[in-house]
Parts: sequence; structure tokens; C-alpha cells
Amino acid sequence: MTEARIIDGKAFAADLRGRIGAAVEHLRTAYALVPGLAVVLVGENPASQLYVKNKGEQTREAGMHSVTHRLPADTTQEQLLRLIGQLNADPSIHGILVQLPLPPQIDPAAVLAAIDPDKDVDGFHVVNAGRLAVGLPGLVPCTPLGCLMLLKDVVGDLRGLHAVVVGRSNIVGKPMANLLLQANATVTVAHSHTVDLPEVCRGADILIAAVGRPEMIRGSWIKEGAIVIDVGINRVPARDPAAAAAGKTRVVGDVAFEEAKGIAGAITPVPGGVGPMTIACLLLNTLTAACRSKGISPPDDLTP
Amino acid sequence: MTEARIIDGKAFAADLRGRIGAAVEHLRTAYALVPGLAVVLVGENPASQLYVKNKGEQTREAGMHSVTHRLPADTTQEQLLRLIGQLNADPSIHGILVQLPLPPQIDPAAVLAAIDPDKDVDGFHVVNAGRLAVGLPGLVPCTPLGCLMLLKDVVGDLRGLHAVVVGRSNIVGKPMANLLLQANATVTVAHSHTVDLPEVCRGADILIAAVGRPEMIRGSWIKEGAIVIDVGINRVPARDPAAAAAGKTRVVGDVAFEEAKGIAGAITPVPGGVGPMTIACLLLNTLTAACRSKGISPPDDLTP
Repeated sequence: MTEARIIDGKAFAADLRGRIGAAVEHLRTAYALVPGLAVVLVGENPASQLYVKNKGEQTREAGMHSVTHRLPADTTQEQLLRLIGQLNADPSIHGILVQLPLPPQIDPAAVLAAIDPDKDVDGFHVVNAGRLAVGLPGLVPCTPLGCLMLLKDVVGDLRGLHAVVVGRSNIVGKPMANLLLQANATVTVAHSHTVDLPEVCRGADILIAAVGRPEMIRGSWIKEGAIVIDVGINRVPARDPAAAAAGKTRVVGDVAFEEAKGIAGAITPVPGGVGPMTIACLLLNTLTAACRSKGISPPDDLTP
Repeated sequence: MTEARIIDGKAFAADLRGRIGAAVEHLRTAYALVPGLAVVLVGENPASQLYVKNKGEQTREAGMHSVTHRLPADTTQEQLLRLIGQLNADPSIHGILVQLPLPPQIDPAAVLAAIDPDKDVDGFHVVNAGRLAVGLPGLVPCTPLGCLMLLKDVVGDLRGLHAVVVGRSNIVGKPMANLLLQANATVTVAHSHTVDLPEVCRGADILIAAVGRPEMIRGSWIKEGAIVIDVGINRVPARDPAAAAAGKTRVVGDVAFEEAKGIAGAITPVPGGVGPMTIACLLLNTLTAACRSKGISPPDDLTP
């Protein structure tokens, strides 16, 4: 029994950001085009503030135009929709991201529906869900896109492999299943109603865990040599009892990593696996949207 | 070994049309609302003419307003799009169906995209594909909707059952997978690249065959007691060699019916299984679209 290859999402994401930066530089010199990303934050949620700060920094580091709109917590839905309308019409902005969650007076579905689907770099708009479902070019949610890129890097051709996606959310499980199907994998979607989930998982050449339950997927659920992609980010008490008693926490995935790494062929760690890919894929989507707005093909090495 | 129950799609469809007719009558008396379906036929394709004639007849029999637009084979795309625009704006029309195939001078994707998604009773518009993918109310393609209704009639609750969909077309396989997932089945989508398809099929409690290859799925691929839904409609030479030599044909499904019926728990025949459900579900979609246009809930016994 050999140890699984640990898939270094942090390194892959850094390399991807480098390739995106090179493509941005090329767009600037060859087409005088600077991809622009607008991030909208409503309210003072500390976690959201950190995400937004990171997104802005990475956008600028990639050489893109970055705008952050910080609105007060009592912003009305009408005010937010007016801003979305302005960003939709702004030719310097190719991607619009509204940081969730939104305050209770704002309906997130109404806001997401108002974003121009061609600028919807989160890939959450119903039109982009439809494009993905029928195989038209669109914008794909960042996390499953990142998972697909890691998978293709590890496996190469996914054709005929049996992929099991555990979890069926609109932002990870379902788009992930569509992407795997497009890559010619045989795809099973499992979820909370699945009978004998361990046995279903043991059928997977590729196992995607996206359930949000800490270490639910055990080592014994994994086929020897399978590629395991762990999307979960769960905060649990620290290992050390004294630290845990003091409220210290640590982050674990949906897969029992220590058990799984003795059985899987390759596995993403948490943290440092899928997580860093999400913002990198947000930049990639912004680049893609900018290229499409001018009818330019994105570089081959950035087409997953 | 008992013989499979033969699922009588023809009888179920007739009953469904009766229930739709009753609902139409109720809409007329209670709300002065008459659901209207416009069918557009371009050119002289004999099979299409027959389909369109049947659709018109069944629409009128259900008490709905039926309009058929027959356009010459040399109709331009612009002319067809102008008609679609008129139908989109016509308040007496709740469903629009453009019969495929279209003549070569017309791009079917452009025509389907022009139909108001809320009148898209074929469920082919990218917005309806997206609504189905994310779980919003929309209009679902008729054939998978009919399959789901037959399944629920036979099985009741699909929760936790393992459904295998063979085929991944945009009009059957992929929407079928989404509907099964919404019904809380564990869903596998298999296709031409699937490795060991017989073994994958043998895992199915519910097997949906939608590949368009005559009798490809053999009896030995079916788990004992499984529910088999055969979407295939394939024309093959007649059984009698002399008749076959004279060009006579017969219609078979994607499943080897005679083999399968000794193993399956229930199976749809071809013809007389899924086929009759398709037009019935077109009427159902027209009723649904008419109800939604006025904010009326469709009757419970018509909500699959």
C-alpha cells in the first residue's frame, strides 16, 4: 500500500494565477483590453470582508482592473439593483461578483438574476446553469471549475472513469456533475437520501466530496487508487483538548484525510487543496468574460 | 421468476389527457382562461405533418385553443422569428412549439432561443434547462416529464432508489437525470464512453434507456425486479424475412423487450409505453404555462 499523492492546490492555483497574469499582459499589449472585476460587498460581515480583500488583491496581482463597492448594511435592494445595472452597462467591467450572504432586506435570487449572464463570473445565474446543462459556452461556478482543473492535471483524460459526486448543491455538486459528464466520465450523484453511500463511494474512480460534513467520508469508503477531491471546509474543535476547551478550532474537509491517504491514489488536502483554486478560477472566469466580450479566444493553456 | 408488469403508457396518457381536459374546463368556468397552444410547421416533411396534426387534434380534444401555422419550405429565418415574436406577444397563446427539423436555411438554436421561456412548452430553451438544473419552476421537456409520471405511478416514492440513465441528450437524458435527482433518487448517467455498461445497468433499480440503438440493452443487463423505462423508438426490418425483403419495418425500443420482461419488475413496451406520454405532457405543459401566466396553481393531480 503506497501513500496517496497529495494534490497541491495551493501550488496549482499559484501557477494558474501566473498563467492568467501572462494572458492579461498579452491582452493588454495585443488588444488594449484590461479585464475588469467588480466585487460588491454589502454590510460588515468580517469573513466576507476578508474574502473581498483577497479577491481584490489577487485581481490586481494578475494585472486586472479591480473595483470594490462597499455598501452599508442598510442598503436597499433597489439601491443594489441600481448599482448592478450600472456595472452591467460599464464596458470596463467584465465580471461582477456580489459577495454573499446579503443582509435580510435583500433577496439574493433577485440580485443574482439581475447580473448580466455574460458578466456573471460566479456562474450562479440561471442562464449560466442552463448553458452548462446543454453544453453551450457560459461561465461555470468557480469551485467545480477548480476541481475539474485539478482532476485533469492529475488524471489527464477522464473518459469512461466513474465519478461519484457526493452532494447536489447548485454551486458545487450539480455543476460538477455536468462538467464531469462533458469530460465523458460516467457520473453518479449521491446525496443524503442515497442508500448505502459507502458502497456507492467505493465504486468511484473519482470521488468528489461536497457535503459540508466534517470527515464524513471514511477511508473504507474509498476504492484503492481512487482520486479524491475534497470540497468541504468545516471548522471543528482543535485536536488538543485544552486548546479546544479554550475555543480553538481547526479546519477539516468532508473526507477523513488521514484514513483516506493510505488508500486513495491522489487526494486534495484541506486546507490547501480545492480552496485556493476558487479565487484563481474567479480570475479565470473574469479573463474568459473579457475575451468573449471582444470575440477573442482565451489561451489554450487556460481552457480546462 | 414472474413476468414484468407491462406499463401501459397509452392508457396512462389517455387518463392524463382526461384529467387535463377536466382542468381546462375548470379554468374556463372559474377564471375564463382557455389555454392556447400554437404549433409552427415549416415545410412539407410528412412525419412532421403527422405529428403536428396529432398535436392539434389532442389540443382541441382537451378543450384548449389550438393554432397551427404552416409556413412554406422556403420561409426565411427572419420571417419565422417575426412569427415567434407575434406569438410571444399574443395573450391567447400560452405555449409555442416549433416542429423540428427546420429547413437548412434556418438555425434551430436561434429560433428556440427566441421563444419566450414561459411559453416554451417543449422545455428546450436554455433558461428552462437552467431552471430545471437549479430547481426553479420552469417548463420541462415532455418526454422525460412523461417518464417521470409513469415512474411515480409505478413506484410511488423514488427516494434513495438508484436510477441509471443511459444516454445524455439535452432533450431526454440530461433533463431526466435532473428530474430523478429532484425526486431524491441516486442518479447515474451512462453513455457511449461508459466502461462496462452492462454492469452499470445491473446496478439500477430504475433503468432509463434513451440511446436510440435498437434493443441494445439486453435482458442480462437488468437487475431482477428493476423498473425499465424505454425511450427508444427505432425502426428495424420486419420480423418476417419476406416482408423485410419487401421493405416492411417494425418499431422497437432500446431494450430487448422479450428478454427484459422476464427479469424486470415493470417495463414500458415500444410502442405504447413512453411514446403516448410525450404529446400528453405537451398539453400538460401548455396547461401549466397558462396557469402560471395568471398566477393560478395547476391542480394537484397534475403536478408530477
